[in-house]
Amino acid sequence: MKSLQTYLTDERIQSVLSGFKIGLEKESQRVDANGELATTDHPSSLGSRSFHPYIQTDFSETQTELITQVFDTDQGAIEQLEALHDVVMRSMEDGERLWPISMPPDLPEDDRDIKIAKLEHQGDINYRRYLAKVYGKRKQMVSGIHYNFEFSHDLLMSLFQLQTDYTDFVAFRTDVYLKVSRQYLRYRWLITYLFGASPFADKRYFTDKETEQPVRSIRNSEYGYTNRPEIAVSYQTIDQYVSDLEELVDKGELIETKEFYSSVRLRGSDKVEELLTRGVSYIEIRNIDLDPFERIGISKETLRFLHLFLLTLLFLDEESTDATHMLDLGTEYNNKVSLEHPLDKTFLHEEGSWLLEKITELNKQLTTPFDCTELLNEMKHVMDHPTKTLAGQMLELMAEKSWTNEDLGRYFADLYYDEAYAKPYQLAGYRDMELSTQIFMFDAIQKGVKVDVLDRTDQFLKLSLNGQVEYVKNANMTSRDSYVVPLMMENKTVTKKVLDKAGFHVPLGKEFSTVDEALISYPIFKDSAIVVKPKTTNYGLGISIFKDGATKEDYDEAVRIAFSEDNSILVEEFLPGTEYRFFVLDGKTRAVMLRTPANVLGDGEHTVEELVAEKNKDSLRGTHHRAPLEEIQLGDIEQLMLKEQKLTKASIPEKDQRVYLRENSNVSTGGDSLDVTEEMNEHYKQIAESAVEALGAKICGIDLIIPDSSINGNKEDTQTYGIIEANFNPAMHMHIYPYAGAGQRLTMDVLLLLYPELKK
Amino acid sequence: MKSLQTYLTDERIQSVLSGFKIGLEKESQRVDANGELATTDHPSSLGSRSFHPYIQTDFSETQTELITQVFDTDQGAIEQLEALHDVVMRSMEDGERLWPISMPPDLPEDDRDIKIAKLEHQGDINYRRYLAKVYGKRKQMVSGIHYNFEFSHDLLMSLFQLQTDYTDFVAFRTDVYLKVSRQYLRYRWLITYLFGASPFADKRYFTDKETEQPVRSIRNSEYGYTNRPEIAVSYQTIDQYVSDLEELVDKGELIETKEFYSSVRLRGSDKVEELLTRGVSYIEIRNIDLDPFERIGISKETLRFLHLFLLTLLFLDEESTDATHMLDLGTEYNNKVSLEHPLDKTFLHEEGSWLLEKITELNKQLTTPFDCTELLNEMKHVMDHPTKTLAGQMLELMAEKSWTNEDLGRYFADLYYDEAYAKPYQLAGYRDMELSTQIFMFDAIQKGVKVDVLDRTDQFLKLSLNGQVEYVKNANMTSRDSYVVPLMMENKTVTKKVLDKAGFHVPLGKEFSTVDEALISYPIFKDSAIVVKPKTTNYGLGISIFKDGATKEDYDEAVRIAFSEDNSILVEEFLPGTEYRFFVLDGKTRAVMLRTPANVLGDGEHTVEELVAEKNKDSLRGTHHRAPLEEIQLGDIEQLMLKEQKLTKASIPEKDQRVYLRENSNVSTGGDSLDVTEEMNEHYKQIAESAVEALGAKICGIDLIIPDSSINGNKEDTQTYGIIEANFNPAMHMHIYPYAGAGQRLTMDVLLLLYPELKK
Repeated sequence: MKSLQTYLTDERIQSVLSGFKIGLEKESQRVDANGELATTDHPSSLGSRSFHPYIQTDFSETQTELITQVFDTDQGAIEQLEALHDVVMRSMEDGERLWPISMPPDLPEDDRDIKIAKLEHQGDINYRRYLAKVYGKRKQMVSGIHYNFEFSHDLLMSLFQLQTDYTDFVAFRTDVYLKVSRQYLRYRWLITYLFGASPFADKRYFTDKETEQPVRSIRNSEYGYTNRPEIAVSYQTIDQYVSDLEELVDKGELIETKEFYSSVRLRGSDKVEELLTRGVSYIEIRNIDLDPFERIGISKETLRFLHLFLLTLLFLDEESTDATHMLDLGTEYNNKVSLEHPLDKTFLHEEGSWLLEKITELNKQLTTPFDCTELLNEMKHVMDHPTKTLAGQMLELMAEKSWTNEDLGRYFADLYYDEAYAKPYQLAGYRDMELSTQIFMFDAIQKGVKVDVLDRTDQFLKLSLNGQVEYVKNANMTSRDSYVVPLMMENKTVTKKVLDKAGFHVPLGKEFSTVDEALISYPIFKDSAIVVKPKTTNYGLGISIFKDGATKEDYDEAVRIAFSEDNSILVEEFLPGTEYRFFVLDGKTRAVMLRTPANVLGDGEHTVEELVAEKNKDSLRGTHHRAPLEEIQLGDIEQLMLKEQKLTKASIPEKDQRVYLRENSNVSTGGDSLDVTEEMNEHYKQIAESAVEALGAKICGIDLIIPDSSINGNKEDTQTYGIIEANFNPAMHMHIYPYAGAGQRLTMDVLLLLYPELKK
Repeated sequence: MKSLQTYLTDERIQSVLSGFKIGLEKESQRVDANGELATTDHPSSLGSRSFHPYIQTDFSETQTELITQVFDTDQGAIEQLEALHDVVMRSMEDGERLWPISMPPDLPEDDRDIKIAKLEHQGDINYRRYLAKVYGKRKQMVSGIHYNFEFSHDLLMSLFQLQTDYTDFVAFRTDVYLKVSRQYLRYRWLITYLFGASPFADKRYFTDKETEQPVRSIRNSEYGYTNRPEIAVSYQTIDQYVSDLEELVDKGELIETKEFYSSVRLRGSDKVEELLTRGVSYIEIRNIDLDPFERIGISKETLRFLHLFLLTLLFLDEESTDATHMLDLGTEYNNKVSLEHPLDKTFLHEEGSWLLEKITELNKQLTTPFDCTELLNEMKHVMDHPTKTLAGQMLELMAEKSWTNEDLGRYFADLYYDEAYAKPYQLAGYRDMELSTQIFMFDAIQKGVKVDVLDRTDQFLKLSLNGQVEYVKNANMTSRDSYVVPLMMENKTVTKKVLDKAGFHVPLGKEFSTVDEALISYPIFKDSAIVVKPKTTNYGLGISIFKDGATKEDYDEAVRIAFSEDNSILVEEFLPGTEYRFFVLDGKTRAVMLRTPANVLGDGEHTVEELVAEKNKDSLRGTHHRAPLEEIQLGDIEQLMLKEQKLTKASIPEKDQRVYLRENSNVSTGGDSLDVTEEMNEHYKQIAESAVEALGAKICGIDLIIPDSSINGNKEDTQTYGIIEANFNPAMHMHIYPYAGAGQRLTMDVLLLLYPELKK
């Protein structure tokens, strides 16, 4: 392939240079709390491995493989890989962790204790048995990262249009990837130097001979996960690549082409021979060790660097047209660098510095958001300071802490385990999204439903399973509800009319759209218990309650307050009793919740302030809706409330004295959420369910006022209940992680509503 | 029944006194442009009379009967009756009107030219043939208003609880209605005096003898629509009422009970005998003449007065316990008053004044919004001044204009006809609602689908047909669309992603949620034609277009403008070409529209200002979205636009010179809407349809940019089209009443989507 270097500075190239696609695969061993290989099966809560797009097992039952979708930013892949870690870790048996180092933990004495992955298809099991026989089970236990990389179509097309040698785009694209692959194989030692992170291996790992330790990367050395030296495949042309591979299989040197363990695989079709017609469309980089300092095994800087490295290799002229020589040289160099002592300067320091200079030149062509000057300066520093390589850093830390390699592995395994469980209601990678959506995504990923975030700020997801696409917003807005039903529920007057018509008890009242009209209607309401509220607000703003009727002055004031929130207001009958939220999905009550105002329980020893601080320590409490419960505040409103009870924050409530800090029971102002799903009288559940059916809703949060839930409710008896509101976007996280009582996994109910086949 | 008077001032009664229910039926004769009985059939556009809940025919094919639903305010009934008039008038053959007087217009010489209503059921036709035989066809041609009235359940229940005689509520309620009916029959002469409005009748109307003319009400006199004097029914008890009626039928005096033409009928069941078990639940007042001064035949003051009158009769003690005597007296008085000269003082002036005083006393018990002091003062004035009665006013007007009775009828028939056609896109009674909803309600009413307005300001309707209930908001949000699809379309980024994934050409671009991020991305866009726009706005606000790329300064400014409208903005590829709106419903393109900016066409004679004024005369143009098109303004923006063309509003454009007054093509700023549904290349319709299918929408307005619609569009060829937006709440009125081209009745398409059986 002729030099592409001159095109690098071309304007057309510059505007498309930064586009790419990325997909990551990450293996790691499942270990127990002691850092020993887990003896349990792959977690059953993860659904079926026969279709799971994200979570699989590689060679052994303990070798968990996490697979991201294809993204067009590193960030996208990182976020999903973070989420996959949360899902897999919280799905494993209690105490199990993921081993953070490429080389496996201490292996069992008896090979038979390494269980081959229990897959459904016999062919998959047979393949692993073959590998165990040819390479030994221990060698198959090495883990790493596969980095799937594709240049943007725009970049390749622009290059194709600029060059004059090729008339066929697919042929051009294939040759581009062949060139980049040859270059990568030639210079891959640099990646081993910078990011090699497998300095040690258990004695039992080695079969015939053992290397000296520590080294930069056992995995990338001749002792690693590699074919026999005689397995050679040409990267000169696609024809040669394919025919070499096919010949190896024909001769029985490889059982199938995927047994070819090159650092770079040409990709574009599952069947190698199809590369001849379809061409190469991306490459799979396979020589990345797990970075133990990163929970997901790779840092965003490493990904950034790999991208720059591959772009540089695309434009950099090849050292020689002798591909075989280049590959041999590359393998030789890489093997040597792999086996260097991590703290030694590499023998290829000069070539490395030259390469980093080339990458720096390329970086200058990138526009602002993609500029990586700082990262490259850091890599130059690492080039000169071997202690800053990943392997170097591991050694330094082990020395500092007097740790063995296993100690280091256990330390990070424990750390990442704790991180996964610290806030189990959040999903790493997507913590900026609403809690319910995070939990819903967790459930979908766990069960193997593909999730695309179409819009983060809008909580808009696309789900796919077996070709069935479903769109979901806010984790509860789905195709199962019709358009007009939520519009109905959005309008309190319409909701009431429909429920009233269907025979349910709803507070009677009147709607007003002008202040005057509302004011002159006072006589109608003067002797009744009433609520004055804005027509459409959902957040409790502008609501006044008069349990014993309102004076004219109170009424007028309440009308004005309500009108300050909306153009129309409602004056309604006030229903006495306790308010419960019924969450009804697909005709069935899935959760019932009682909310109580922010409060603390005295112990006769601590002050209100101390009790609040203690209660706020609950990991379920947070701020800004990033936790299922909000922290209790001690602001003006709370202190006023204390004052009315003749208390201050310095008061010490008596033992078992309940001190309320708020009038309102909203969870958002520190209230407690009490799950009463089991206890709730079935009659009220039936009323809630039939009311939701009358509204025609599939998913609905409906609020009932119940004077006495120990008495059976009756639809016809207005004394037993009243329906005050129906919500088409009901909060779910408070039911899943309540303050007290059982959590109800409503997000899973939504998922099963969309994909009933997952129930099996 | 014992006196109820003492309860009137009871607190419990006061708070429920004003509640009631009302339903109206109004007959009138269909006439031609000359005021002669129409010879055409009942309009076929009104669907089937076999189930139509609103529009029927009474005796003759020309006797149109309009029936409202039951409302709990006069206002509700009036609004619907207004709407029914618009529907029926615009559904009749061109030029046909409704005769505004109770007495029919000049009747044909030959009785055979009066066609009995062409109903489906033979029984209905036979009944009318019987009536024609017994009473003569001419007498059956008299029209009037039936006023169905029900006291509120709360009022009756409160009275029941206060009294001590009855232990059964239904028996009490029945006796209340019997009392009120007796009282009404006794005092109904007052209604004849005040509202009688049939002073004249055609000679041919009279059979044996003729009355002197004018009188107050021929219809309510012995010459009117009445049974023979010997047909007497007791109102003393429900048993007697039912047995008297059954006996009349048994004896063959009446063919069935509905032939009993009393001024008051007891209602509660279609079968009279069922009144014995179910009781009376409301009464039907039948002696109201059509008020020719009102388009709908009755004024809101008359309705108000009737309500007060009935309330008064409820509490007023009866003159005598001899029911027969009271009824006889009532009939005698009413007959006399009916035949008095309209301009004479009535012989019952004293009793009338006393009655009005009783009504005034009752009125004092009513709370503010229901107070009718002014109306009662007016009625007292009418009592003293016979010229102010309806019949009196008719005579006064005829004298003033030297009109005959027929002239007066024709004058008002013409007036109401013109009113119905002045703004055919509006629906009387509901003009405060959105135009599309008004047109949609028109279509539903026309086809006999029952319409309940659940919320006016929210454009929320409930439809019912054959037990199938449908809710509709904004005339295009229905149960046929799923909840999540409009949420998807609301989000431009998500819409684009879904369309892009499905292989459609959408403008490429980036979304930014911070100003800084958008600003530093300038290099990516610097050489492209771009649009900078807020992410979610729908009204063209904050959009900047750079057809030849933007300078850094322009770009920065555009970013800031867009962010002033939304938290996220989009920077997109600009697609050159003409924008068309495709309205797709149920998989099919129903309308295609081209919108052009506000403009006038020069004639070489008139100034821009004059041309604008002339163009604004179009009845399709209005202001504040109360018309399909908006008036063209000549404000700052328009004058600046003129200035750029070196014109002022005083300039006289040359003949055929098109002068644009706006850059933007929004109909809301005076733009023209051109329907191009027929002309549009089928290929683009198919693209629009398959894009809407990809979005999963049933009803969608999708905007395509087409560089050249004479070239066939191709989904795969990005040069032929681009999709810039999909709207889940697309405007419909502009398609139905376009500036030029054929109107597409999209509201009817929505109706047929919901009720496909109406297609037949």
